[in-house]
Amino acid sequence: MANSKFEYVKQFEQPDQLLPNTWIVVRIDGRGFTKFSAKYSWEKPNDKTALDLMNAAARAVVTELPDITIAYGVSDEFSFVLHKTCTLFERRASKLVSTIVSTFTGHYIYLWSAYFPDMPLSPPLPSFDGRAVCYPSLQNLQDYMSWRQVDCHVNNLYNTTFWTLIQLGGMDATEAEKTLNGTFSADKNEILFSRFSINYNNEPEIFKKGSVVFRDYELVEPGTHSVAVEADNIAEPVQQSKSQLENEKKKRAKARIVVEHLDIIKDDFWDRRPWLLSNKPGKIPKQP
Amino acid sequence: MANSKFEYVKQFEQPDQLLPNTWIVVRIDGRGFTKFSAKYSWEKPNDKTALDLMNAAARAVVTELPDITIAYGVSDEFSFVLHKTCTLFERRASKLVSTIVSTFTGHYIYLWSAYFPDMPLSPPLPSFDGRAVCYPSLQNLQDYMSWRQVDCHVNNLYNTTFWTLIQLGGMDATEAEKTLNGTFSADKNEILFSRFSINYNNEPEIFKKGSVVFRDYELVEPGTHSVAVEADNIAEPVQQSKSQLENEKKKRAKARIVVEHLDIIKDDFWDRRPWLLSNKPGKIPKQP
Amino acid sequence: MANSKFEYVKQFEQPDQLLPNTWIVVRIDGRGFTKFSAKYSWEKPNDKTALDLMNAAARAVVTELPDITIAYGVSDEFSFVLHKTCTLFERRASKLVSTIVSTFTGHYIYLWSAYFPDMPLSPPLPSFDGRAVCYPSLQNLQDYMSWRQVDCHVNNLYNTTFWTLIQLGGMDATEAEKTLNGTFSADKNEILFSRFSINYNNEPEIFKKGSVVFRDYELVEPGTHSVAVEADNIAEPVQQSKSQLENEKKKRAKARIVVEHLDIIKDDFWDRRPWLLSNKPGKIPKQP
Amino acid sequence: MANSKFEYVKQFEQPDQLLPNTWIVVRIDGRGFTKFSAKYSWEKPNDKTALDLMNAAARAVVTELPDITIAYGVSDEFSFVLHKTCTLFERRASKLVSTIVSTFTGHYIYLWSAYFPDMPLSPPLPSFDGRAVCYPSLQNLQDYMSWRQVDCHVNNLYNTTFWTLIQLGGMDATEAEKTLNGTFSADKNEILFSRFSINYNNEPEIFKKGSVVFRDYELVEPGTHSVAVEADNIAEPVQQSKSQLENEKKKRAKARIVVEHLDIIKDDFWDRRPWLLSNKPGKIPKQP
Repeated sequence: MANSKFEYVKQFEQPDQLLPNTWIVVRIDGRGFTKFSAKYSWEKPNDKTALDLMNAAARAVVTELPDITIAYGVSDEFSFVLHKTCTLFERRASKLVSTIVSTFTGHYIYLWSAYFPDMPLSPPLPSFDGRAVCYPSLQNLQDYMSWRQVDCHVNNLYNTTFWTLIQLGGMDATEAEKTLNGTFSADKNEILFSRFSINYNNEPEIFKKGSVVFRDYELVEPGTHSVAVEADNIAEPVQQSKSQLENEKKKRAKARIVVEHLDIIKDDFWDRRPWLLSNKPGKIPKQP
Repeated sequence: MANSKFEYVKQFEQPDQLLPNTWIVVRIDGRGFTKFSAKYSWEKPNDKTALDLMNAAARAVVTELPDITIAYGVSDEFSFVLHKTCTLFERRASKLVSTIVSTFTGHYIYLWSAYFPDMPLSPPLPSFDGRAVCYPSLQNLQDYMSWRQVDCHVNNLYNTTFWTLIQLGGMDATEAEKTLNGTFSADKNEILFSRFSINYNNEPEIFKKGSVVFRDYELVEPGTHSVAVEADNIAEPVQQSKSQLENEKKKRAKARIVVEHLDIIKDDFWDRRPWLLSNKPGKIPKQP
Repeated sequence: MANSKFEYVKQFEQPDQLLPNTWIVVRIDGRGFTKFSAKYSWEKPNDKTALDLMNAAARAVVTELPDITIAYGVSDEFSFVLHKTCTLFERRASKLVSTIVSTFTGHYIYLWSAYFPDMPLSPPLPSFDGRAVCYPSLQNLQDYMSWRQVDCHVNNLYNTTFWTLIQLGGMDATEAEKTLNGTFSADKNEILFSRFSINYNNEPEIFKKGSVVFRDYELVEPGTHSVAVEADNIAEPVQQSKSQLENEKKKRAKARIVVEHLDIIKDDFWDRRPWLLSNKPGKIPKQP
Repeated sequence: MANSKFEYVKQFEQPDQLLPNTWIVVRIDGRGFTKFSAKYSWEKPNDKTALDLMNAAARAVVTELPDITIAYGVSDEFSFVLHKTCTLFERRASKLVSTIVSTFTGHYIYLWSAYFPDMPLSPPLPSFDGRAVCYPSLQNLQDYMSWRQVDCHVNNLYNTTFWTLIQLGGMDATEAEKTLNGTFSADKNEILFSRFSINYNNEPEIFKKGSVVFRDYELVEPGTHSVAVEADNIAEPVQQSKSQLENEKKKRAKARIVVEHLDIIKDDFWDRRPWLLSNKPGKIPKQP
């Protein structure tokens, strides 16, 4: 029984390579996590253990896929950044997205019992969907990261005030929503401070800033490094040599992967960690 | 802090809806399962427990995603079929693929300890990648399914003979490969029978046929049903009404999901289960 | 001076093959033809010469590209249909669209002086844009064709009444628009008949039905042919043999190409010309 | 007769917007121009009149589509560059490609009789196909342009030598090909000079360099301008305001469009015409 008669069906597979020389962001999102968080009685507005589990799963993804430059997570979402020179899986979108989603989900389920020992999982299990987006310039990529961190801040300030009105203020959800309707950031800070003596600035960094996961090397002194990393890369060919890629892989594999809660909107974060945006991780780009 | 300054990055997301009125197949594959199967000392050429775990995970996917019509698995791969009228996630490729891959991976990890109680998992964890392919006609879809089942047969006959030559015949891998080089199916059957008294036909169906996962309703008598399902559907609009879709969802949710090891190449399988290809599951299409 | 240094830029070309086994429609549209028709003082609501020129250009496209099955035109648009088995230019969308648009434009400009001898062209010249759409089933394709012909009818009835109110009724555009606001087809027929003694049914077929361009062979007797063309094709592989394709090409090249103004919504048109939908033009598909 | 029954077919149109913030190159190519050039007995290896006609058509395209930044042509191909901030036709690939191809073809046919008054066109007419490619960085775009110009040089040196061996050296094509087999640039220059006293450097610039079509403003003094135009643009949002775009359009519409035969590989060409890469044409970007 030859297979040739049916093999023509392979022709229907359509290529989905992502445009070369663009930064790839794979963002994954929890599916139905509002319902899911209720099932496991997670704390409102933020459950520290649930976030720690997200971060542990993301850390495992960054460990198993050394091509990932940096990851940023908030709530039930995580964004994984692949360098614009990345050629993993020939940059095929479905392969990149599915591998990251699968690795993340696997570790999330695997690690669950360590983080929630008293809450055994039962179906329907937590799951995640994902998509890939290309960003042509470094500025676009950094603006993407800033977009997610601003979103984290805006949502967290809202949620913190909303749940404080309910938990400490005795309101129901409708009253709390009404109270916050039309308010600005300053108003929410004021509500928290004047009514509940809560200084929002003292809230945990993980809630206010989200979580950044990346390979750590020695920091560059602030002010001494003003590289136009983009300019450096522009002149380079799209593809690196095989041996360069191999070296890069080894270095990345060895580096310590950290989870931090830092401001990634300001340039300082990137200026002091030039290897993140370089295509030669572990090596600080040449000064201009 | 307004988010508007950064929100422009949303423009970079590109749509990936799959062509309407085509059958969607999402195929997932184990990543590095050769290495993985060695780590857990799975039996060669087939580990029954490992296949049972694959099937259990696939069954969970079909249960949680009632839009899935049928699934077919062999070795470390599984193909999930979505009906050509399916509008789940607006038919967005990355959403469909990532959700199926994530749900499958989650259940695979979750169920692991029930299937391999003496082999605790440790990182790197098993993971899967996936992709979506569209098939315009029913014939194309059935040819796809046949392609996978023929592949199952061809590989299993080869692997069974190869490992028998090693395990019972005392050959090493190189000798076994050499022995099989250039042989046809009949030759392999003959080797198994004459040298080892093994009748390939008596091998377990799960190894020879792979596994079909689908919702079960009452079978149609063979010969009484000669549906032109395709012709029936052609005249129907691409989209169903919301209430139709709701009813369909409920019916599907209630149906028993079975795992069988049947021939899906011959028409008989499809003729006796007309609901599989109908867009009104549980209801047998009108006779012409 | 080697070119290898720069050749990497070829990697940025992304494939755009259209899904196999689907009907391809390339629709082209005149760019800014409202302005253009004013510049050359075309008759309102229909300029017969302008339509004849469109048809002549479309006829030339069908002649030069024998892969085209049928074309349908109305106003300043034309739809060209490629058979679902077509492999021209490996089904690359940009190649198919650009070639059809270029060939059409070339003949439109080239033939202009024959159709409008007293109106020499001057820049900006007439131009056309185009796009390709895939239709998985024959029903989808026929519904596409019906959609365009219904559009032709609806627009022509409106425009005929609108311009009659102006040209014979002495209204200005605003009054005519107001008069037609909220009217149904029957109302427009009535306005034409009762106020201007115009029987819409007697209007020229080219205005009411648009134009169909196709290769002509001997008609099949009505009623004697009950083709299951789709069913016939379903069982066939996606690709034909090279010699089949060559024969097909030759037959198509010899056939007379006609421009007619027929109803393509009713089945009769297709039933009597089974070669149009067959992948063996000139040969009537077997009776079931 | 309502159209709603058929309108569902619009759902099959799939979006094809090109990634924002990338340079778009639409390259068009003559279809079957080897045969076409024989039909009209064009001079070998270069027909100056044929190239002039190509350039005139390209000039018309740049005139009618002010969004085009620069165009580069060689032989029967032309590349049109759209700025990375361009939003023409919402960056839809098929619309951009088909419009450029149609406009080019139209002018090519329209201008034919002015360039070849003694050679009336007859079908099959000249036609062109096209495709769009995105380049994320300025370096990628310039490398694309360099790739085309190096190709022009390499082909022209080969063709010039090949045809000289035939036309002046009395060889046939096979002998000429054999003579050139394995030769480097220096060898070809030597053959031309020693055997035929032809100094390749004295060949017409249009043959050696191809043709650049662009809007002309006052040149910047060499050496005074060293802008990192890319860096300037990076910080800018993807979209410009409507009024900015309007102003830009007007300025572009007024500028003189020139056809030149210059080296576009060296930085000097771009450094002295900074408006070409700026998104504010006519205005020289600020010095850093």
